[in-house]
Amino acid sequence: MELLGILKESPALKTLFEDCMAGRSGFTADHFDAQVRKWIGLSSSTALRWITYRGLGGEMDGVMALGMSDEACKAFLMYACGERAVRELLLRLPRDHWVELKYVAEWMRNGITELIDVQEENKENETVYKVTGRRRGRRSVIEHMVDGSKDGVLAEVRSLLRETSCRTRRYFAIEGDLLCLRAVEDGLAIHWLLYTPELKSDPLGYQLYEQACLQEVPRACLSGGLMAKLTTTRPVPRVIAVVETGVRSLTHFQLGSRSVLLIAENIANPDNLGMILRTADAAGAEGVMVVGEGSDPFHKNCIRAARGAIGRLPLLYCDNLRTALHAFVAKGTQVIGATGSAQETLWQLDFRPPLLLLVGNEQNGLTKEVLEVCTHQVRIPMVAGQDSLNVGVAAGILLYEIQRRLYAECSRRDMRVNSIVK
Amino acid sequence: MELLGILKESPALKTLFEDCMAGRSGFTADHFDAQVRKWIGLSSSTALRWITYRGLGGEMDGVMALGMSDEACKAFLMYACGERAVRELLLRLPRDHWVELKYVAEWMRNGITELIDVQEENKENETVYKVTGRRRGRRSVIEHMVDGSKDGVLAEVRSLLRETSCRTRRYFAIEGDLLCLRAVEDGLAIHWLLYTPELKSDPLGYQLYEQACLQEVPRACLSGGLMAKLTTTRPVPRVIAVVETGVRSLTHFQLGSRSVLLIAENIANPDNLGMILRTADAAGAEGVMVVGEGSDPFHKNCIRAARGAIGRLPLLYCDNLRTALHAFVAKGTQVIGATGSAQETLWQLDFRPPLLLLVGNEQNGLTKEVLEVCTHQVRIPMVAGQDSLNVGVAAGILLYEIQRRLYAECSRRDMRVNSIVK
Repeated sequence: MELLGILKESPALKTLFEDCMAGRSGFTADHFDAQVRKWIGLSSSTALRWITYRGLGGEMDGVMALGMSDEACKAFLMYACGERAVRELLLRLPRDHWVELKYVAEWMRNGITELIDVQEENKENETVYKVTGRRRGRRSVIEHMVDGSKDGVLAEVRSLLRETSCRTRRYFAIEGDLLCLRAVEDGLAIHWLLYTPELKSDPLGYQLYEQACLQEVPRACLSGGLMAKLTTTRPVPRVIAVVETGVRSLTHFQLGSRSVLLIAENIANPDNLGMILRTADAAGAEGVMVVGEGSDPFHKNCIRAARGAIGRLPLLYCDNLRTALHAFVAKGTQVIGATGSAQETLWQLDFRPPLLLLVGNEQNGLTKEVLEVCTHQVRIPMVAGQDSLNVGVAAGILLYEIQRRLYAECSRRDMRVNSIVK
Repeated sequence: MELLGILKESPALKTLFEDCMAGRSGFTADHFDAQVRKWIGLSSSTALRWITYRGLGGEMDGVMALGMSDEACKAFLMYACGERAVRELLLRLPRDHWVELKYVAEWMRNGITELIDVQEENKENETVYKVTGRRRGRRSVIEHMVDGSKDGVLAEVRSLLRETSCRTRRYFAIEGDLLCLRAVEDGLAIHWLLYTPELKSDPLGYQLYEQACLQEVPRACLSGGLMAKLTTTRPVPRVIAVVETGVRSLTHFQLGSRSVLLIAENIANPDNLGMILRTADAAGAEGVMVVGEGSDPFHKNCIRAARGAIGRLPLLYCDNLRTALHAFVAKGTQVIGATGSAQETLWQLDFRPPLLLLVGNEQNGLTKEVLEVCTHQVRIPMVAGQDSLNVGVAAGILLYEIQRRLYAECSRRDMRVNSIVK
């Protein structure tokens, strides 16, 4: 087990954590709880909540302890095996509290600023930081009534969504009851929830509205006619969430020992790209990088097909794919291109995470330039007659085969993960 | 290894075949070749072609020997592990010859009449038949010019495509250059290839036209305007193939020892259904049964998304799904429902083919009525946050996990399949 963050820095905690992970006698969850309270200076009267993020095999990929009082929230990042784990843990931080986040490792800082509006940052020692700030997303608790096409909120929303370059955009729109409800529940940084009066007329819409109120998401009510001017989707959605997000540079993205990063090159169809993102999300990929001339991950069809993955799953970019891949190759990372012309099948290839998995265009597959840099190529065997699979299906089959191997590894190590956290 | 067809009936051939499969010394492909010539009474001057159909792991799923002279074709079915293998072998029979097909087992007869217009059938012994006939599909070699909307060929095509009930229809239409080329190359029973003059203007279209001529597929040339009246697809396709097919009753469908039958219930979106069929095709499923209120497998979007699977892969129906499933359960066959609420994951479940795998509606999954009859339930694990996969992706992940286990089995048995056929 590779430890990251604070656990690496603190021998006492490291031993404690490893012993708990291994289920060695003498250590109970209660004991662990008491130790952590001491470390973050939390009285026994304040509730201590454990937030975990688990991999597909049930193995622990991230652990955070939360001490909440009325005014502030002390979050103690105990363990995170990679960027996605950090992100999934941070998304569980309350939106309405000031947060004091201990102990942040150097590599986590980029991921943190994407979700937290950092007000103060102190170096605690050689490599560990303390960060203070609040969750991103507008918090002014208002219920605004849009009074016409010249309304200020409407103008603000239009301006937020104006930037459409994938790399530099900071905001995107989620349409429809189900996906907006998911965005609210997932704790995404929603700046405005725009809705028509019809939203509250059925149970799902009402549930969404109530959740938004509870989480103090700013809401603006507008007519169906004005909503129709914000989107080309028909029938006109009853609700749109304007969400703050970011696309991160691959250069500063940390891979953990079990990380699988998916790279999708030149995917032409936004529905296919969305399906790839949804699948990568479900399969626990560390993140997805969308490269080339293909669809924009923020295309509304892609967002819909991704079923909540956009905004939660880390999205990445790089300036030059070949250069970026070469850097990984130089570090000894597997760079695996999926192509029908590969010698080895997914059942033969020896996957050794952390790894990069690349899938290509629906018609032409990966470009020659990219395949040249790959350290490995892999194919999915097919019976005679059918010579290709949908790229989303192919990505799913490959990602789950890689996860199966990781799962088998974990089972062998018998991590006894359920013994750690009450 | 379970032997079917003639091999089961003939001890001498059975021993020979098994010895070849096992790669035992003293047997070569030449020796095998000579034995077969003797059995079918073929002189050494006539070419003997070996047609094989292989599973995903390269294992031999079907073997047929073809002795071709100018007038007739003697086909010798040596081994077929199931219905799909029979079908894939028969699709390789020449369209323009009379075929004498030896030795046909009882269970193969339904599959054979779907592809061959049987003229004569003789019982050779207790369980083996000899069948004489010709490949289905119109063979009159003509190049027809459609001269207007009242043209006879156009009227015939309209009447062939009139029946739209999935179960009773005998003909369906394939649209577009790429899929029509595939249909011609796959040897489907094409009754008419309708094309506009523009078809021959580019290399792919020209290749299709030439192939159709070579295989004596009847062709009819018509204007783009008349083509536009045959389909709602826009832009108007340059070519449409009218193909004879059938949907078979599950009751008379034979499962082999490695068979996986996929059942898709209430799939609402024809693109999803097509993706399921394409994936099942690639993963070597024995066949697919489409049940419930969902999409028609012959919907043009489904045909397009299935990429050649419709027409080649056996399609099945049953009158009452629960009754049909109960019959399989009674025989001890695994009936496995894919559902997010299953206890066991795909990595834990002990798949024991032959088996039936069921996937359900995009929103609601399998119906309660169907899940009740399942002997097993299986889920694909997902990390927190994402709670579903596209049904085509899910089917792909499950089918390939089942195939992986079969492949591992085959590798253990070390079938040395490449030693049999030159």
